[in-house]
Amino acid sequence: MGRVGIIGCGQTAFGRRSDATVQELAFEAWRLALADGGLEPDVVEATVIGSVPEYHKQRSLPGVVQEYLNLNPRPVWLTEAACASGSAALRTACLSVQAGAHHVVAVIGCQKMTELDTAEILALMGRVGDVQWESGFGTTFPGYYAMFARRHMHEFGTTVDHLAAVAVKNHHYGALNPKAMFRKEITLAKARASEEVSSPLCVYDCCANADGAACVIVADERAARALGRDRVVWLDGMGCASDSMSVLRRADLTGLPATRAAAAQAFAQAGITARDVQVADVHDCFTIAEIMACEDLGFCARGEGGPFVEARQTYLGGAHPVNLDGGLKAKGHPIGATGVSMTCEIVAQLRGECGPRQVPGAAVGLTHNVGGIGQYCFVNVLRRD
Amino acid sequence: MGRVGIIGCGQTAFGRRSDATVQELAFEAWRLALADGGLEPDVVEATVIGSVPEYHKQRSLPGVVQEYLNLNPRPVWLTEAACASGSAALRTACLSVQAGAHHVVAVIGCQKMTELDTAEILALMGRVGDVQWESGFGTTFPGYYAMFARRHMHEFGTTVDHLAAVAVKNHHYGALNPKAMFRKEITLAKARASEEVSSPLCVYDCCANADGAACVIVADERAARALGRDRVVWLDGMGCASDSMSVLRRADLTGLPATRAAAAQAFAQAGITARDVQVADVHDCFTIAEIMACEDLGFCARGEGGPFVEARQTYLGGAHPVNLDGGLKAKGHPIGATGVSMTCEIVAQLRGECGPRQVPGAAVGLTHNVGGIGQYCFVNVLRRD
Repeated sequence: MGRVGIIGCGQTAFGRRSDATVQELAFEAWRLALADGGLEPDVVEATVIGSVPEYHKQRSLPGVVQEYLNLNPRPVWLTEAACASGSAALRTACLSVQAGAHHVVAVIGCQKMTELDTAEILALMGRVGDVQWESGFGTTFPGYYAMFARRHMHEFGTTVDHLAAVAVKNHHYGALNPKAMFRKEITLAKARASEEVSSPLCVYDCCANADGAACVIVADERAARALGRDRVVWLDGMGCASDSMSVLRRADLTGLPATRAAAAQAFAQAGITARDVQVADVHDCFTIAEIMACEDLGFCARGEGGPFVEARQTYLGGAHPVNLDGGLKAKGHPIGATGVSMTCEIVAQLRGECGPRQVPGAAVGLTHNVGGIGQYCFVNVLRRD
Repeated sequence: MGRVGIIGCGQTAFGRRSDATVQELAFEAWRLALADGGLEPDVVEATVIGSVPEYHKQRSLPGVVQEYLNLNPRPVWLTEAACASGSAALRTACLSVQAGAHHVVAVIGCQKMTELDTAEILALMGRVGDVQWESGFGTTFPGYYAMFARRHMHEFGTTVDHLAAVAVKNHHYGALNPKAMFRKEITLAKARASEEVSSPLCVYDCCANADGAACVIVADERAARALGRDRVVWLDGMGCASDSMSVLRRADLTGLPATRAAAAQAFAQAGITARDVQVADVHDCFTIAEIMACEDLGFCARGEGGPFVEARQTYLGGAHPVNLDGGLKAKGHPIGATGVSMTCEIVAQLRGECGPRQVPGAAVGLTHNVGGIGQYCFVNVLRRD
């Protein structure tokens, strides 16, 4: 397989974006990505959209986005893998470049969630659980992740302070990220005192629904070197795995097997181990999810995620800096945009453009994007020359 | 780009399938495809689902299908391009094979539309038109295609008898297809006498919403020759193009520019012209759509589609046999399944397995799958050795 390079990245501010339609958000990210890469629109031969369609009044987004970007008649289609839809789009775009079908492809993750109210969103999200056997009986996403948290506490002694420590860190870095939805530090006491959503998860353990878009432009090696010059970041490992829709069928609830499988693929392709990852964006839809991700990705041992986080090993300067953009938790989680936004962040880290959040000299980074409750997982390894 | 071969095909009966959930329909098609190819499930390394998510109570179908097929932890994700979602899935699977990411990939188009009532479906479909500028003012799919038909009549003298002739032909062949939803011949008089839906389109000018699934298994050239032996059908041309979401922005309403662009790509890749196509499945969501497709694909000249159909040139024995499986019109149109089902039909034709519907000695076939009102078009050229 040929090498795939990233030659342009852009993302909108995340949050409540009542100022823009979903296609306008996509356009904003697209313009930023072109400007970032110094690219003309003409070089982009196809577009892949990552989004979960049912959140928008407008259905079939690829059509409305491609028209708004003035890219007709070039190919466009959408990919969906729940909250990992953006990573599915990136994977599809990379495959089309590696197949030789196109030289340069744009990936746009975009989502407007605030057109719906929270109850509608919870109901829709619940239906990403198994409708026949689970969500029909009332499971919601906070409920699922609360079960993971309870089991993790039971087996490994993880505490609510460990959970809250993730929130504190991610709000700390969110405060430093101009694109983040929440830009305020919080204390452990404040996180602990927040209202319970689904025990043991409180408000500050949960990410926020948001509007936003992100765009990444990928190219085959030759086009990347010609267009991206010395700023290219390479996608050297791309893992993808699935797991059962229903948690009923999971052998254990303290981690996500799909993460482990996807990471193994990505590490093997890139010829690295977890130890080599200098900066990572992981899927912290809930604080427990970040703790499980650290374990599943091999940043720490199974069951050690809580103490690992508490010891500030995921901060800048720690063994494995994680979510220095604030994560889903503080940056916000417009579901289709998230995987693409993670990619923008790691590219910026590998180019040394992150200012106060920069991991000095980072050359190898990772993104980890989960769909649903681990039904899908995409792990990518990124590297600069 | 490497050659992609099709080594297994299966589809369920289309129609009202209250006997099965959407994952059960997918499973049925999958088992038929494995049996058709004499394949073990283990050879399939990844799955791409083609479906429009919002028609199902169950959201994020890839998860529930992959679990039901017992294919975890292998990769799975979904593609959407409105009524061409199945073709988007096929394209994505082919790209992943050509990229070298996988040797063998399953494509499953599946859709259950009868969970919703017709009014809900019409409202959802209307939102595949431009919500900001068009569908908010009441446009529906029959309304859009009625505008195409009116304009075609105005410019070229196309008549309602020409439209009805398409329905008569497709019901004729549907009656010969055991998988078709409608298996009854109709007369021109009966078609003409049916109730008006959106003038000039009557009930028999419109395809029917349906439940159903289809599965195609694709492989790289080496795997295809090893597993498919002498039954392989090759995807030698794959075109894909887009057009504006809103018809307001279309320069003319007598054809679909996306079809012309996608066909040009597919023909160039396969090194053929329209004249070489011996059998085709085209997107006849409405009778006018089949007439426009014949023109846009180059089976007849612009404006000649009506007389071309009336002269029985699209029947078995005519210049360009079209929709010998009954088309969307009589076979039924479970939107995500349609593009994959078209592929199954053309593969069967090229293998000489279509009995009374068989084009004798067919070696080159074509599928033409449209999303929405031409926002997306996928044209594939298939060939046997």
